[in-house]
Amino acid sequence: MDIAIINTLIITFEGKGLGIIKAGGLGFEDGKISYVGKMSEFEYKNADLIIDGNNKHATLPGLINAHIHSPLTICRGVVHDIPEGEYMFKGLSPFINQLRSEDSVLGTKLTVIEGIRSGTTTFAEYEGNVRNLVEKVYLPYNIRVVATETINERVHVNIHKPSELYEFNRSKGEESLKRANELFKKFKNNDLVTPMYGPQALDMLTMDFLKEIKQQAISNESKTYMHIAQGARERQQITKRYGKDMTAVKLLKANDLLDTTLIAAHIHDTTTEERNLMVKNNVKMVGCPSAISKVDGIAPPLGDYIRLGGLAGIGTDEAPGSGHHNLFHEIKLASIFAKIAFQDPTILPPWESLKLATISGAEVLGIEDQIGSLKIGKRADVITIDLHQPHLIPIINTPFHNILANLVYSSKGNEIDNVIIHGKPILLNNEFVEIDETSIINEVNNRAQEICENASEDWEKSNSKMVEYHKSGFI
Amino acid sequence: MDIAIINTLIITFEGKGLGIIKAGGLGFEDGKISYVGKMSEFEYKNADLIIDGNNKHATLPGLINAHIHSPLTICRGVVHDIPEGEYMFKGLSPFINQLRSEDSVLGTKLTVIEGIRSGTTTFAEYEGNVRNLVEKVYLPYNIRVVATETINERVHVNIHKPSELYEFNRSKGEESLKRANELFKKFKNNDLVTPMYGPQALDMLTMDFLKEIKQQAISNESKTYMHIAQGARERQQITKRYGKDMTAVKLLKANDLLDTTLIAAHIHDTTTEERNLMVKNNVKMVGCPSAISKVDGIAPPLGDYIRLGGLAGIGTDEAPGSGHHNLFHEIKLASIFAKIAFQDPTILPPWESLKLATISGAEVLGIEDQIGSLKIGKRADVITIDLHQPHLIPIINTPFHNILANLVYSSKGNEIDNVIIHGKPILLNNEFVEIDETSIINEVNNRAQEICENASEDWEKSNSKMVEYHKSGFI
Repeated sequence: MDIAIINTLIITFEGKGLGIIKAGGLGFEDGKISYVGKMSEFEYKNADLIIDGNNKHATLPGLINAHIHSPLTICRGVVHDIPEGEYMFKGLSPFINQLRSEDSVLGTKLTVIEGIRSGTTTFAEYEGNVRNLVEKVYLPYNIRVVATETINERVHVNIHKPSELYEFNRSKGEESLKRANELFKKFKNNDLVTPMYGPQALDMLTMDFLKEIKQQAISNESKTYMHIAQGARERQQITKRYGKDMTAVKLLKANDLLDTTLIAAHIHDTTTEERNLMVKNNVKMVGCPSAISKVDGIAPPLGDYIRLGGLAGIGTDEAPGSGHHNLFHEIKLASIFAKIAFQDPTILPPWESLKLATISGAEVLGIEDQIGSLKIGKRADVITIDLHQPHLIPIINTPFHNILANLVYSSKGNEIDNVIIHGKPILLNNEFVEIDETSIINEVNNRAQEICENASEDWEKSNSKMVEYHKSGFI
Repeated sequence: MDIAIINTLIITFEGKGLGIIKAGGLGFEDGKISYVGKMSEFEYKNADLIIDGNNKHATLPGLINAHIHSPLTICRGVVHDIPEGEYMFKGLSPFINQLRSEDSVLGTKLTVIEGIRSGTTTFAEYEGNVRNLVEKVYLPYNIRVVATETINERVHVNIHKPSELYEFNRSKGEESLKRANELFKKFKNNDLVTPMYGPQALDMLTMDFLKEIKQQAISNESKTYMHIAQGARERQQITKRYGKDMTAVKLLKANDLLDTTLIAAHIHDTTTEERNLMVKNNVKMVGCPSAISKVDGIAPPLGDYIRLGGLAGIGTDEAPGSGHHNLFHEIKLASIFAKIAFQDPTILPPWESLKLATISGAEVLGIEDQIGSLKIGKRADVITIDLHQPHLIPIINTPFHNILANLVYSSKGNEIDNVIIHGKPILLNNEFVEIDETSIINEVNNRAQEICENASEDWEKSNSKMVEYHKSGFI
């Protein structure tokens, strides 16, 4: 046995009550789970590494961030509290325009250490030229990645004139599709990488091209992962191009694209009827509570989607939007937002909200046979949580377990002390085993300061609300 | 000089942009701030203790939790995701009935270490016999407390028959008022204690008695701190007792009680018009985002109150409700809830939301001359935050400061590494100086398990939604 975790409270995420095992143990061999159960039946003494929880720890499957754009973490905090219409083209663009290819790698490194420290072991990375990040960050660091190549046909992506239709160029689109296809050739049998097609959004490509991408995805037994119904800009383009009553969901339905191979991020600009149609057609949803509430002032409809019987995961999107990559925050927000939406405190209880970042997230991404729960034969992606901290006490097991509630409503996302991915220890006793955290922090911080200094002039010219705040002495 | 903090980014909370000072220093003498400003003009070398931030830290005024019931932290996680009507009388009562006087002290100790670790230095404690907690926890631990004595006339507080008017007993009320008056005699000149009158709520006492309490408060130059417009149960009692169109705010107005000496917790069961009336009459509001959203499925109207020009603070209420005592969570939730309420991402920006837990919280409690900002002569209640953590990077100061945004949207509440209260170090380099954290954690955990075991039989009989969850195998 390579690793054994002993004397721990296990939440397997198998079964109704999330499969709580008191005084449990887990064994890992060749990157897979070889034992999960009671300590009393666990033969672990030959393990190369033994992690003793002293019955003060909980062990969970590693969390799954089902929607993330990592490179932009290098620009955390540069845009906030401005009208949604200004966010991308006035708030963020001046900084994005300064980014070099190496900055994407730096931003992704920072994202990964932030994510690992808050319990994430799988990152559904959604980027252009995602292979660069896979090869320079995810594989060297031994981190699981769902590598989604952004595919679009749009020229001048950094310009937005609301009254004009975006211009498309098929050959631009074909290039990104080619990159996506190459991901499958290159990584199809890689233990850590799941390639995915990412047609960006309905305002970013033609329906013809989208259908072609879908065919490629199906022939690779994969899915298409799209941003859908993201708000005013997308809606404006759709009505302009396809008719004034058209919506994202109607357009997908009319083109026979609403089916089980579709993963839909966001969908906050949909009606309950449209969501119901998506659920009936087995479309999977991914919601990003922090990002959409902070950028748009909208709570993503995760609670409604699940109430309607749909399957959903959660993600942190991009850091300038959400502020962070802490899935414990997202789980709590998803639950709280759902309760508020229905003015009903019983909506999205812990055994449902915790699944968003574990087994349901895995199902959404189509890798539930590999990860998302602790079961013999599944990949050894595991986190341990130090429960003996003031904000998680007490731990009650009689007359019922309070651990699920405390993980959702009381955690900070800083309680993770061991992280194992595919059987390899990444974080041990709160320290990174191989990753040089301090160097990454310093390098990103220095380079970000340079980026922001270089962006200053353009930023001031943007005349955004942020510039107004600065001139008023607020920031 | 007793203590100097050097090479730190200071957020003074004085002025518009919250008074950011780069490369700053602070000095403390005799429990007060003796220097705050640039390092270049700071003579600190004779200080007994020097804390060097290495320009990787931020220093803020200690946070103010403006509404907390600490003893019940011993019951964290015992009730959740049940209808609001069941929360108190079915969900929590079986456990409360098992509590002994010593358990209140234990629960408060746990609360204090949790609060300190997430940056709280002032606890507005709202309890019956609050003096016991002051003498057994707050004073020995050197923690600042606004000691609010709960005053009510209600008999049988643990029984709720919705169709019946609560029974009152004036002599019960007089006893609690006497305890409140004694707080003033005992602690009026204490450096750490601010006594306060806490007439519990309009359904808990007669108007006559409330007016008497108000007179006592005014004669002590203090305020009355009430739970107001908390929802269905309170409303039901008010309409039954005072007429079917009566509301909490109308009742207060009719009795001339809506004025600047009133602090109103919660107020989620009010209309915007009523809130406007409260603001016009200088009533102060305290909101508890986690507690009210989790227990009631309602976002407290903090954003609206501030938009109307009102003054507000925030609190964590009781842990079985909120789940935690982490004000960084509450600041973020307050901001996000406000954005969602108005579908406007510009509502409650960081320089406003951060004030809720600092200078505005101090103003609400009437102690803004003592705490809430960093200013020479104010009490030395200070926290330092380690910014060199993956989730708070980068730190940008050009072309503007991103620190306020990152503290609100990205923090976990675990970044505090030094806490000083009234010039005395409580937490140094992430370790408690005198408080034995591990013992408290173990003691609370063991006693909580005992309480829950003893409560099991009554709990099962309560037939609450929690019992149903347990029988279904969820918890």
